[in-house]
Amino acid sequence: MSNSFFQKDIVSIRDFDKKKFETIFDATDKIIKMNPSERRELARGKTLGYLFFEPSTRTRLSFEAAMASLGGTSIGIADASSSSAKKGESLADTVKIMSLYSDVLVLRHQLDGSSRFAAEISEKPMINAGSGTEEHPTQAILDLYTIWKEKKRIDGLKIGIVGDLKYGRTVYSLLYALGNYKVDVHLISPTALKIRADSTYEIKKRLPYKESTDLEENLDDFDVLYVTRIQKERFADAEEYAKVKGSYKIVPDMLKKMKDDVIIMHPLPRLDEISHDLDSTKQAKYFKQAEYGKDTRAALLALILNENGF
Amino acid sequence: MSNSFFQKDIVSIRDFDKKKFETIFDATDKIIKMNPSERRELARGKTLGYLFFEPSTRTRLSFEAAMASLGGTSIGIADASSSSAKKGESLADTVKIMSLYSDVLVLRHQLDGSSRFAAEISEKPMINAGSGTEEHPTQAILDLYTIWKEKKRIDGLKIGIVGDLKYGRTVYSLLYALGNYKVDVHLISPTALKIRADSTYEIKKRLPYKESTDLEENLDDFDVLYVTRIQKERFADAEEYAKVKGSYKIVPDMLKKMKDDVIIMHPLPRLDEISHDLDSTKQAKYFKQAEYGKDTRAALLALILNENGF
Amino acid sequence: MSNSFFQKDIVSIRDFDKKKFETIFDATDKIIKMNPSERRELARGKTLGYLFFEPSTRTRLSFEAAMASLGGTSIGIADASSSSAKKGESLADTVKIMSLYSDVLVLRHQLDGSSRFAAEISEKPMINAGSGTEEHPTQAILDLYTIWKEKKRIDGLKIGIVGDLKYGRTVYSLLYALGNYKVDVHLISPTALKIRADSTYEIKKRLPYKESTDLEENLDDFDVLYVTRIQKERFADAEEYAKVKGSYKIVPDMLKKMKDDVIIMHPLPRLDEISHDLDSTKQAKYFKQAEYGKDTRAALLALILNENGF
Repeated sequence: MSNSFFQKDIVSIRDFDKKKFETIFDATDKIIKMNPSERRELARGKTLGYLFFEPSTRTRLSFEAAMASLGGTSIGIADASSSSAKKGESLADTVKIMSLYSDVLVLRHQLDGSSRFAAEISEKPMINAGSGTEEHPTQAILDLYTIWKEKKRIDGLKIGIVGDLKYGRTVYSLLYALGNYKVDVHLISPTALKIRADSTYEIKKRLPYKESTDLEENLDDFDVLYVTRIQKERFADAEEYAKVKGSYKIVPDMLKKMKDDVIIMHPLPRLDEISHDLDSTKQAKYFKQAEYGKDTRAALLALILNENGF
Repeated sequence: MSNSFFQKDIVSIRDFDKKKFETIFDATDKIIKMNPSERRELARGKTLGYLFFEPSTRTRLSFEAAMASLGGTSIGIADASSSSAKKGESLADTVKIMSLYSDVLVLRHQLDGSSRFAAEISEKPMINAGSGTEEHPTQAILDLYTIWKEKKRIDGLKIGIVGDLKYGRTVYSLLYALGNYKVDVHLISPTALKIRADSTYEIKKRLPYKESTDLEENLDDFDVLYVTRIQKERFADAEEYAKVKGSYKIVPDMLKKMKDDVIIMHPLPRLDEISHDLDSTKQAKYFKQAEYGKDTRAALLALILNENGF
Repeated sequence: MSNSFFQKDIVSIRDFDKKKFETIFDATDKIIKMNPSERRELARGKTLGYLFFEPSTRTRLSFEAAMASLGGTSIGIADASSSSAKKGESLADTVKIMSLYSDVLVLRHQLDGSSRFAAEISEKPMINAGSGTEEHPTQAILDLYTIWKEKKRIDGLKIGIVGDLKYGRTVYSLLYALGNYKVDVHLISPTALKIRADSTYEIKKRLPYKESTDLEENLDDFDVLYVTRIQKERFADAEEYAKVKGSYKIVPDMLKKMKDDVIIMHPLPRLDEISHDLDSTKQAKYFKQAEYGKDTRAALLALILNENGF
């Protein structure tokens, strides 16, 4: 029986259930331990084609590194919005042709629904590397894997998510993913950057959560603290930004108020939401998380390309 | 005896004869059927170096995909006009050095003659991926292969070429290539976009053709309909453009007036010269054509890099 | 015993001594003679990650070509100043993450000290591909290898370095490298483009040299003539530039005044400091030099990645 990801698209994290996550977690564990020369058989002679309509260095490079570690090759367009659009080609045609040149497609696009649409056009399995306002399934997978790997479980955890919760698809994808587990989620943000009203209904169906604006008073509560960027350009008022920025910045002193075994995550890139002084602490897991990004993507690619798993 | 393409440059489609085309057609057939692991021996450890002074996503990616499928690697400059020119380096030096870093060179450049010049400078075989106003030999090869593969012959066919015939090197290369066969060619374009007067002498030596402006009345005539983009910026007058654009657009209704086994081709990217509703019809061969682009380029690379063929 | 470069950073040419250069020279000789399939085992399954905060086509491509010839893959950011900086990420984080995705890092950055800093952050060995005003160690290595290979020795040679000696890190790295040998160095430049006063102390500690402004009268003296670009934008006065430019241009006639076995080098790209008419003479070694760039970088990568050498 072929594995459940074989030749399948990865469009939305909402299509995932616990079982699917577990399949990927197990596959990632295996990939990490695998002998490199065995590993290089998993995409030997295969080509990954990427199309990034929004630039994304980190996601693109982790896919390329993953593919290389499986013995495969990556080709593509790192800035498709300038290159293909120049000649006025439709997304459909760009996707179609890229899919003729490759064995698996990786697409990032600014529009909601672009990924579902592209998956229908593509002749090959397509992985959504970020679309629209809510979807970034492979980011959610690596986030969950990081929690699972570093905390040994997901069920039962208290998870704080702090920062700009309005913009940034990462948070939405993570919330949908966490909806498969029994977790206490606490969303902390400035009022102006609360989770979008039109998404709350959908999220609440899956996951009870509480919201507040104060990070400091809840610090002792978390098993996982997930920090996101707060971007200056979201604020009309520079003074307002400065105030908010300061109050959400994670500094070493805060560790004293937190559980000793809390893990601190961040999807990166960070500005200064987390002090560099934290990097060397055992709680800081954001670089580990980035590394797991390569591993989970390698596992996903290996599952998609190999019928009988590995 | 070494194959006739071994270590040779591909500069101009005018250097080709029927025998050369047949060699590539046969090699492409073989490449397509080949076992992937055998195929990956054909450029194992070889490096393709590309220099695109004009951007060309599709051509570049199909070369990269082809090279990967042969087990080789591609490196290069996707936008050479900005990168090398910045430091004021001559084309000769850029080509020379790129040829020191690679086993085969792929060059696109806006100037007529650039390719011949570069081939003389290069230490390695050089493939012209588009130069000046007339030459795009690998496009012509894939076009001819598509016709040959889908119609089982080229001699005796009635071929309509429609759209902007003045600009766009694809049409010129195709006409020079078709000059090796006994075909009836019918060129259909707005008067302002007729084939350039200074090329007609050269083309007529090889190929009789007729010209007209009306697509509709000739539809029942074609075995092959080759459609090209009509770009707005070629027209001084927006109204004139709108009129022309409409009259050359291929829509499903037109199929009723066409031979049932006509094939419809397009070098892509398309704007709206061909309705997307046509994509799923058996007559639409433009995506197949793009796919053959990868295969014919793989065959060409394999012939250039392997003395005794494969 | 593991080789002295194994898993080591290459930060500054000032860390090199004669023995280190000899190790690389020998390794390069070996690499050049090596059977390609053996050679491809040296970085089999390894990934080179590059970060270019200043664009550098030639250096980047020669690293990519070198890595490919060792059986490895390259991924990275060709224009990091636009891509990563866009999101405001620190150099430290960009380097850290890139090092998680790859087995060896290649960095170019405009700031002095960036390379030392990055080496401390990186989880993997890091190679400086040009930093700040003075350091370009792999360029110095290839320059020295070229001299050693073409003149069969370095000690005892008379070396002229001509052109813009003020800007351009290549010259500084070369001078520091030559400091390990007994050579007569003669620096020839317009007064305005003399070597920077704040570097002379450091250089003089390692290497006695004389300076002058006249190329013509010293031509018969050199075993090696190293020519560099003179860029128009360095001059306030166009007339001044024109005068200087003319007087430092190497033309075939000058060969008559030079030793018959002089070698002429240039780090490239060149503008018109060396006439193209010189390219085919036996004295012209700048293309050979570029080719050795690929080979010395391959040797360096192979030493860094393989504990017991090769």
